[in-house]
Amino acid sequence: MSADIKSITSTPMRVGVLGFGGLGQAAAKLIAPKSEMILVAVADLKGYAYASQGLNVDKCISAYASQGSVGYLEAGGTLSSQSIQELIDCSEVDGYFLALPNLPNTFIASVAQMFMRSHWQGVLVDAIKRTSAVEQLLTLKSDFQAAKITYLTGCGATPGLLTAAAVLASQSYAEIHSVKITFGVGIANWEAYRATIREDIAHLPGYSVERARAMTDAQVEALLDETNGVLTLENMEHADDVMLELAGICDRDRVTVGGVVDTRNPTKPISTNVQVTGRTFEGRISTHTFTLGDETSMAANVCGTAFGYLKAGIELQRRSIYGLFTAAQIMPQFVK
Amino acid sequence: MSADIKSITSTPMRVGVLGFGGLGQAAAKLIAPKSEMILVAVADLKGYAYASQGLNVDKCISAYASQGSVGYLEAGGTLSSQSIQELIDCSEVDGYFLALPNLPNTFIASVAQMFMRSHWQGVLVDAIKRTSAVEQLLTLKSDFQAAKITYLTGCGATPGLLTAAAVLASQSYAEIHSVKITFGVGIANWEAYRATIREDIAHLPGYSVERARAMTDAQVEALLDETNGVLTLENMEHADDVMLELAGICDRDRVTVGGVVDTRNPTKPISTNVQVTGRTFEGRISTHTFTLGDETSMAANVCGTAFGYLKAGIELQRRSIYGLFTAAQIMPQFVK
Repeated sequence: MSADIKSITSTPMRVGVLGFGGLGQAAAKLIAPKSEMILVAVADLKGYAYASQGLNVDKCISAYASQGSVGYLEAGGTLSSQSIQELIDCSEVDGYFLALPNLPNTFIASVAQMFMRSHWQGVLVDAIKRTSAVEQLLTLKSDFQAAKITYLTGCGATPGLLTAAAVLASQSYAEIHSVKITFGVGIANWEAYRATIREDIAHLPGYSVERARAMTDAQVEALLDETNGVLTLENMEHADDVMLELAGICDRDRVTVGGVVDTRNPTKPISTNVQVTGRTFEGRISTHTFTLGDETSMAANVCGTAFGYLKAGIELQRRSIYGLFTAAQIMPQFVK
Repeated sequence: MSADIKSITSTPMRVGVLGFGGLGQAAAKLIAPKSEMILVAVADLKGYAYASQGLNVDKCISAYASQGSVGYLEAGGTLSSQSIQELIDCSEVDGYFLALPNLPNTFIASVAQMFMRSHWQGVLVDAIKRTSAVEQLLTLKSDFQAAKITYLTGCGATPGLLTAAAVLASQSYAEIHSVKITFGVGIANWEAYRATIREDIAHLPGYSVERARAMTDAQVEALLDETNGVLTLENMEHADDVMLELAGICDRDRVTVGGVVDTRNPTKPISTNVQVTGRTFEGRISTHTFTLGDETSMAANVCGTAFGYLKAGIELQRRSIYGLFTAAQIMPQFVK
């Protein structure tokens, strides 16, 4: 849909995407045809691009692919080693999706603090995964409130979509016995999601975030060769647990997350689902299940959800509601 | 949990239940063990009961069962043909669950107007089913806003829990092709849910709300004898459609609701589920499915959800957010 048609309806939300790897590019593609949102800002490690009337997503992607940064974009691109800081200072954006790698584990929180130091006011949404990363943000709750930033954390697929589904499922029960999240991810080529796959490797026994981050591409390749490209993950440190605990659903030790990632086949090895088991007020034990269709990609489930929360966050911001929220507390909206 | 233990934690929410048939009684039983909410007010057609420190649910139920009204309750009961009006005038309640029969179709809206005329301020939650009933409430939206009432409509199982699940499921898609809700209900004895079963009968071909309402118990019994106690319902007029349309998910004609109700067997004849089919931003067609465990009763799924929305509504009310909302817009909270 062209910018002209967009402007006929109510003013679209001006959104930005920080990080322009696999997830950031998918986010940009997902937003391109929307009428309610326009992508005005993107940043990667080496540069950023800003256009108040909307960026050309295809040109951003080809600049990144051919030259290594959106900063090379002819119209609106700027090369900078302080890309996020400069973008914050020069742009007018209602809300950002932080599609940044979560390595090191403190990175997202440090970016959030950069926004606050710049006295920027708006909505920030992340698709952070680790419990410890969300816990760092929790310590900033009153800072976000004071800075008039509406920050929504854990707004991807898991945590995010499946965490919210667990909150809904819990409504039928007087007590929650377990929340079991099992995900299947299939991608044709791990190199399109270098950061995401390293984050997955970090969950394997004997690995850490630091060790996974330090691996060369060749080392990742060698590890994947050993398992025929498949990563099987159990009892992962996933923020679904702290988010559900904060929402009062159950103690975090009742929440488990595991999955199977096939890095050489876009077909999902198993269906992604969340199972919520509990006891009803009549004393019956039962299980509700939310299952994602196998044809939906990680990118669709993560980025679609993130923008649904971004829209909901902009509504909160317009009502002067600031602070830190998780995907378990807010109903995401549908972005047209 | 005793009232003493409740008072140790933060002040519990004071809630009321209007209507004391099958649904209202289930709602009262569900609330009884909660620490975050106390049931202080109930009303039926012939009377009401109010106790600022909390009602004894068992005694309310036995008064209703043995004498036909909670108004006969020794401590706090009052017989009145204007039970709801008198209760509003004499009580302090943070929010009500309107577990009222939705026959006639204008009844819930007329009760809502009674609250506004009385200058009552708080949260109202209904588990209304019909599109036309929700549409009547929609016309009152600005009135609720002006009256500083936070009204949440369609907050039962369907519409309600399954509608909200459809909103979550839609996040993965660029376009929604269909939302298909199929419910199974099993109850041991239709006479425990006289109003609910008449509402179901009203959806059968050749029946209307008026005709179903006018049926004697013997006529309902005769109809159920013909079908061995099973009611099969298709293309029902259910407010999931208008709620999803309002939330921007899809046009209402893409939403269908049907189900099978067994009035002689508490086992569900089929599993209740919602299937959301759409197209992702990459062009793939897929279906997400949310399925309720068969062991969960209609009462657990309806009343649990309604109180989850009531808690969320009280949070909105405390933030001075008034007006009309649907289950598709707000994340219900978990009531402990």
